[in-house]
Amino acid sequence: MRKQNLPISAVLLLTLFTTATAADKAPAFARSDLTAAATLRERALEDPTAYQLIESLTTEVGPRPAGSPGDKAAVAWAVREMTRLGFANVHTVEAMVPHWIRGEAKFAVLAPYPQSMPTLALGGSIGTGSEGIDADAVMVKDLEALAALPAGAVKDKIVFFSNRMDRTRDGSGYGKAVAVRAAGPSAAAALGAVGIVIRSVSTSNHRFPHTGALRYSATAPRIPALAISNPDADALVRQFASGKPVRLHLDSSSRDLPQMRSANVVGEIAGTDRADEIVILGAHLDSWDPGVGALDDGAGVAIMMGAAKLIKELDARPRRTIRVVLFANEEFGTSGSLAYVAANETNAPRHVLGFEADFGAGPVWRLSSRVNPAQLSAVDAIFRALAPLKLVRGNNEARGGADLEGLVLRGMPILEPGLDGTNYFDVHHTANDTLAQVDPKALQQSVAAFAASVWLGAQYSGTWERVAEPKAPRR
Amino acid sequence: MRKQNLPISAVLLLTLFTTATAADKAPAFARSDLTAAATLRERALEDPTAYQLIESLTTEVGPRPAGSPGDKAAVAWAVREMTRLGFANVHTVEAMVPHWIRGEAKFAVLAPYPQSMPTLALGGSIGTGSEGIDADAVMVKDLEALAALPAGAVKDKIVFFSNRMDRTRDGSGYGKAVAVRAAGPSAAAALGAVGIVIRSVSTSNHRFPHTGALRYSATAPRIPALAISNPDADALVRQFASGKPVRLHLDSSSRDLPQMRSANVVGEIAGTDRADEIVILGAHLDSWDPGVGALDDGAGVAIMMGAAKLIKELDARPRRTIRVVLFANEEFGTSGSLAYVAANETNAPRHVLGFEADFGAGPVWRLSSRVNPAQLSAVDAIFRALAPLKLVRGNNEARGGADLEGLVLRGMPILEPGLDGTNYFDVHHTANDTLAQVDPKALQQSVAAFAASVWLGAQYSGTWERVAEPKAPRR
Repeated sequence: MRKQNLPISAVLLLTLFTTATAADKAPAFARSDLTAAATLRERALEDPTAYQLIESLTTEVGPRPAGSPGDKAAVAWAVREMTRLGFANVHTVEAMVPHWIRGEAKFAVLAPYPQSMPTLALGGSIGTGSEGIDADAVMVKDLEALAALPAGAVKDKIVFFSNRMDRTRDGSGYGKAVAVRAAGPSAAAALGAVGIVIRSVSTSNHRFPHTGALRYSATAPRIPALAISNPDADALVRQFASGKPVRLHLDSSSRDLPQMRSANVVGEIAGTDRADEIVILGAHLDSWDPGVGALDDGAGVAIMMGAAKLIKELDARPRRTIRVVLFANEEFGTSGSLAYVAANETNAPRHVLGFEADFGAGPVWRLSSRVNPAQLSAVDAIFRALAPLKLVRGNNEARGGADLEGLVLRGMPILEPGLDGTNYFDVHHTANDTLAQVDPKALQQSVAAFAASVWLGAQYSGTWERVAEPKAPRR
Repeated sequence: MRKQNLPISAVLLLTLFTTATAADKAPAFARSDLTAAATLRERALEDPTAYQLIESLTTEVGPRPAGSPGDKAAVAWAVREMTRLGFANVHTVEAMVPHWIRGEAKFAVLAPYPQSMPTLALGGSIGTGSEGIDADAVMVKDLEALAALPAGAVKDKIVFFSNRMDRTRDGSGYGKAVAVRAAGPSAAAALGAVGIVIRSVSTSNHRFPHTGALRYSATAPRIPALAISNPDADALVRQFASGKPVRLHLDSSSRDLPQMRSANVVGEIAGTDRADEIVILGAHLDSWDPGVGALDDGAGVAIMMGAAKLIKELDARPRRTIRVVLFANEEFGTSGSLAYVAANETNAPRHVLGFEADFGAGPVWRLSSRVNPAQLSAVDAIFRALAPLKLVRGNNEARGGADLEGLVLRGMPILEPGLDGTNYFDVHHTANDTLAQVDPKALQQSVAAFAASVWLGAQYSGTWERVAEPKAPRR
C-alpha cells in the first residue's frame, strides 16, 4: 500500500501507537505477546468452552445457594472441570457459609381488590409463622420517603416500597435502587412496621419476583420481607390509587439453619519468570435458588475458566501466575471472599492484578481500570490490543466486584472489561436466570476480551504498582 | 391539486374504487357510512377506553377461571361497565361451568441430576395424591412418536413430550403443537403410563410454564399431567441426552369440585331499520388462573367493548343491532358459548354477522372473512375503508374462534380482523399474562380495525347471506 493512500484513521492510529511507545522507556508488551493476545481474541470468538461450562453447570448442578446440596455439588463440579481443563494446583479453600432456607412464600392483597401475586422472600428474611401476617399497608417510594413520614405512620403496618430501578448499561441503576432491599426491613421495623414488601430491584416487565440478601440491623426487630415483580408492583400501586385502604397478607416459611462448610475452588496456569506474582480471576460459584444461576454467576465462572483455558493452550506460558478463584457464597455476605483473604493475608501483596466477572454473559463494552497512574499507558496498550472488539475506553475509577473487595482494599490494581448490563437486571436473582438467557456470541466476545487482557496483564514488562488510595466496590 | 400531479398510487386507488362500485348494482355502503367509519378509525387511535377496561378488569378482578370467585366478580364487573358505557339491554345468560381447583404442583428430576423446576398442572388434570408419583421417564417428541414406540415402552412410566411449537403470525404453530396437551394424557395412559409432563405449548424462552385444558378420553385411565417451561424442557432434554436413566417426580393437588353457575354478559347498541338483525361481537370473560388474563381475553373484552362504545358515540345509529357477548368459560369447554346458542336456538338466523377477538392485544394485521361469495365485494369495500391501518387482505377461509363456533356452524358469516399472534404465545396461559404485556398503541389500532369493520358490517346495504358450507374453527 502506498503511503499517500493510507486513510486518516490509520494515520491517527499509527501516530497514537508511536506516541504511546515513545512515552515508555521500554515497550509495555513484547511484540510476541501482542501477537498471542490477538490469537487468544480470535480463538475465543470460535471457542464453545464457556457456553459448554454454563450448560454443564446449570444442567448437572442447577441452583447452588450457600449451604445447599447444590453448593456442595458445585464445588465438586468446579474441581472436576478445572482438572479436566488441565489447570495446575487445583485445590479448595474452606469457607463457612450461612444456610438459609427459603421455604414457601405467599403474598396476597386482601383489600380493596383481593388478588394473590407471585412472591419471593428476600434472602435472610425470617418467616411469618404459619398464620402469616395480615395488616394494613402504607406505600412509600423509598427509604427517604419512609423517613419523612409522621411518627407512628407505619406502626403495626406493612410497608410497601414502590420505587422502580432504572435500566442502565453499567448497572448504576441497581446501586441506587437496592438500598430498600438491604436496609428496608430494619428501617421499617425501627418505625414499628410488622413486615415489608418491595417492588423487585429489577428492570423486567415479566412477572418474576427478584430475591437478594437483606441486612438486618442489630438494633431493630427482625421482620419478614418479600418482593413482588414489576407488573404486580404496578397493580398494587393501582390498588393504592383507588384511595381505599389496602390490606395485605404475607406468609413465608423462611428460616435459618446452622452454618455449613463450603469452599472456594482455585486453579492456576503456572507462571514462569514472574510466577510469584498472581493475576487473580474472580467469579462466584454460588447462585440464588429460584433460577439456575446461568448469568449470576455461571457466566462469570465460564468466562474466567474459558479465558484461562485458552491461555493454557497457547504455545507460550504466562510470565505471571494466572489464578482462577471461584468463590463460595458471594450472594450472602461474601464469606468465601473473606475466607480467601484470611487464608492469603501474607500473600495479599503477591496478588498484583485482579479481574472479576460477575455481571452476566456479556458482551464486554468498555475497558476500565483502577491502577497506579504509572501503569495507565499499559492499560492503554491493552485497550488498543482489544480494538477489534470495539470497546469504549473507560476511566481509572473502576471499583471491582464484591469478591475482590478485600484485595482491592489492600491496594491491588484491577482491570475491568465491563460486561454490558443493559438487560442483566431483567434476569438477575429471578427464576428466569437460565441458560436460555445466555447469548453464545456475546459470551464468546466476553471471553475474548478477558482472555486477551488477562494474558497481557500477566505479560506486562513493567511492575503493577499498588494503588495508593483504594476504594471499596459500590454495593 | 392538478390532476396530472396525482401520484400513481392515488390514481390506482381511484381506479379500484370506481371498478368496485361499478360492479355492484347499488353501493355496498352509503358515503355517510364510510365517513363515519373513518371517524371511528381516527377516534379509536386516540381513545383510552379499551386500555382502561383491561386495567380495571385485571386490577379489580384479576384471575377469573370458571367457577372461581373471580369468575363471579368478572360477571358483575362486565354488567357494571356495560351499563356505565350506556349499552342497551344489558343482561346475563346463565351458563353452568366446571369448577376445577389447580392446587399446588411440583415437578422434579430425581435422576440423573436432581433439580426442581417450576410447573403448572394442565387444566382438568387429576391430582397425584399426597405422595406424588416417582417413576422412570420416556421422552417422545409428540403423539406420533408415542404411537410408534414398541408395546410396553411406557408402561408404569412418565411420558415427557418434548416437541416445541413454532412462532407464527397467524397462530398456526399453536394448532399444530397443542395436540399433546389435549390428547397426550389419555394417549399415554392408554399405553400404561402413570403420568405425563409436556413442554409448554409456548414460544417463550422465559421460565413460565403454560397451562390449558386437557381432554381425557372415556376409555383410558385418568393420569396427572403437568407442563414445564421451554428453558426447563431444554434442560430435561439435556438430562436425557446424558444417556443415563431419567427419573421424575410429579406432585399435584388438583381436583374437581361440582359445577357452578356463571353467566355470559350481553349488551347492545340497538339497531334502527334492521334492528332484528344482529351483528355479534364475541370475546370471553373467563381467564386462566396463573395470570390475570390481560391478553387472554381481557384484550378481546376491551376491544369489543371499546369498539361498541365508539359506535354508540357516533351521531348516527347503526342499522343492525350490535350485540357484545362476553362469554363465560371459553377455556374449559366453551360451556358459555353452548349455553348462549341453546338460549338463542330460534334466534340463531338473526345473527347475520360475527366478529370474535380472542388472540391478544393486537395490532390487527389482516382482514379475512368467511362470507357468502355474493358478499365478497362488500368485504373488499370494508378492507378499503381500513386502508390507513395498513392491513393485508386475507382469504375467505376464516374459521372464527371457539365462542362463535355454534353460530358459525349454523351458517353465520364472519369477518375476521386478524390480531397479530407473533408474540401472543409467549404470554398466553402463563402467569405472565398481565397488563405489562399490553401495548396501548397496538390495542388502539385493533379497536380502530374492529370499530370500523363492525360499523360497516352493521350498515351494509345488502343482505349478509348464510354461508353454505360452514366449517368449525380450528382448535
